[in-house]
Amino acid sequence: MSWESRKRARFVNSLSGFKSATLVGTHHPEYGDNLSIVSSVIHLGSSPPIMGFVLRPPGDDAHTYKNIKSTGICTFSHVNEEIIEKAHQTSARYPRESSEFHEVGLTPETVEGWMAPYVKESKVRMGLTLLRDTELVNGCHFLTLAVDWFEFDSDGYVNDGYVDIHSLGGVTISGLDGYHRTPGISRLSYAKTDHEINKIVDFRLGWPE
Amino acid sequence: MSWESRKRARFVNSLSGFKSATLVGTHHPEYGDNLSIVSSVIHLGSSPPIMGFVLRPPGDDAHTYKNIKSTGICTFSHVNEEIIEKAHQTSARYPRESSEFHEVGLTPETVEGWMAPYVKESKVRMGLTLLRDTELVNGCHFLTLAVDWFEFDSDGYVNDGYVDIHSLGGVTISGLDGYHRTPGISRLSYAKTDHEINKIVDFRLGWPE
Repeated sequence: MSWESRKRARFVNSLSGFKSATLVGTHHPEYGDNLSIVSSVIHLGSSPPIMGFVLRPPGDDAHTYKNIKSTGICTFSHVNEEIIEKAHQTSARYPRESSEFHEVGLTPETVEGWMAPYVKESKVRMGLTLLRDTELVNGCHFLTLAVDWFEFDSDGYVNDGYVDIHSLGGVTISGLDGYHRTPGISRLSYAKTDHEINKIVDFRLGWPE
Repeated sequence: MSWESRKRARFVNSLSGFKSATLVGTHHPEYGDNLSIVSSVIHLGSSPPIMGFVLRPPGDDAHTYKNIKSTGICTFSHVNEEIIEKAHQTSARYPRESSEFHEVGLTPETVEGWMAPYVKESKVRMGLTLLRDTELVNGCHFLTLAVDWFEFDSDGYVNDGYVDIHSLGGVTISGLDGYHRTPGISRLSYAKTDHEINKIVDFRLGWPE
């Protein structure tokens, strides 16, 4: 508890385990595009598809939060191995009128009728609508969002519904600043009390016949 | 939208990105120990240390939720490569009076004065107190918890605060049923607008001098 704040943040962030690596894209009619990396995206439901993520207590720099509150929408673009450094650089405190896309060298693209841009270099991206903004005990905000559309590189699709996001270069985050590759170990069968678990897939042996 | 529910759940769960793999341990004075795998643990703050996770809408089987509401406490134990199948098996619907520790073959241990057991085979574990229970739009519950104590294998500790949870065998989850290894790529410096990002560590080259 006596450690300086950055060391302590590195430590406690490591203890929560591996995290998703997602770029949140927003647009504001006056200030333009914004892009920000977050590591707190989680799945909340699939029917309808709902996800959530956490933003720090909104201060002067809360561009992502302000833009989502203004427009009600955002995009998620998964970070892959080829864009790690550019994605990380979006966490610098650029002025509100700057576009992080331009500052870090990522390409904004939009789909028809959705003003929040996604990252062209990402292989899994989606558009979301804000459903609820919940303040947590420490001033952080948990945003609950509905997935309105998605696009992904079909090379990762498996016919039972699984998307092999490792095969699309997907990475995971540890702590404040650690980026990790994600080679598959196995996919396991639905757990039942009267069955042993089976490997649906052993990634080290390849797919079953 | 017309896919059957399991396929759809596999798909939408894949789109949220990589997730933490955590066993939640609880105890109930009448029904005994419970252990359940979750993939939604996220970091909320480091000073004081606060984490959160999501539980599905509480139904008859909501043993973890009921136990945390009864006792106010739980443990988190990180899943490592050696216990993936046992960890996954905790998601089967055992009766309330069964202990998943016993059913799947993991060892419950407790720290003095903390009745919720952790998993001995885990290399990162902690005890947490419920701060707030928030119902989300789709009936899921988001639990906000304070970290009261932790223990981890010091082989993973780096002197700037980072814990290398990959070196402790830590895994990440994709979709409903995919388990992935997590070899490090790099750790990146704090992002500033007037600096290029540096690699603090390039895991493929080893640690800098």
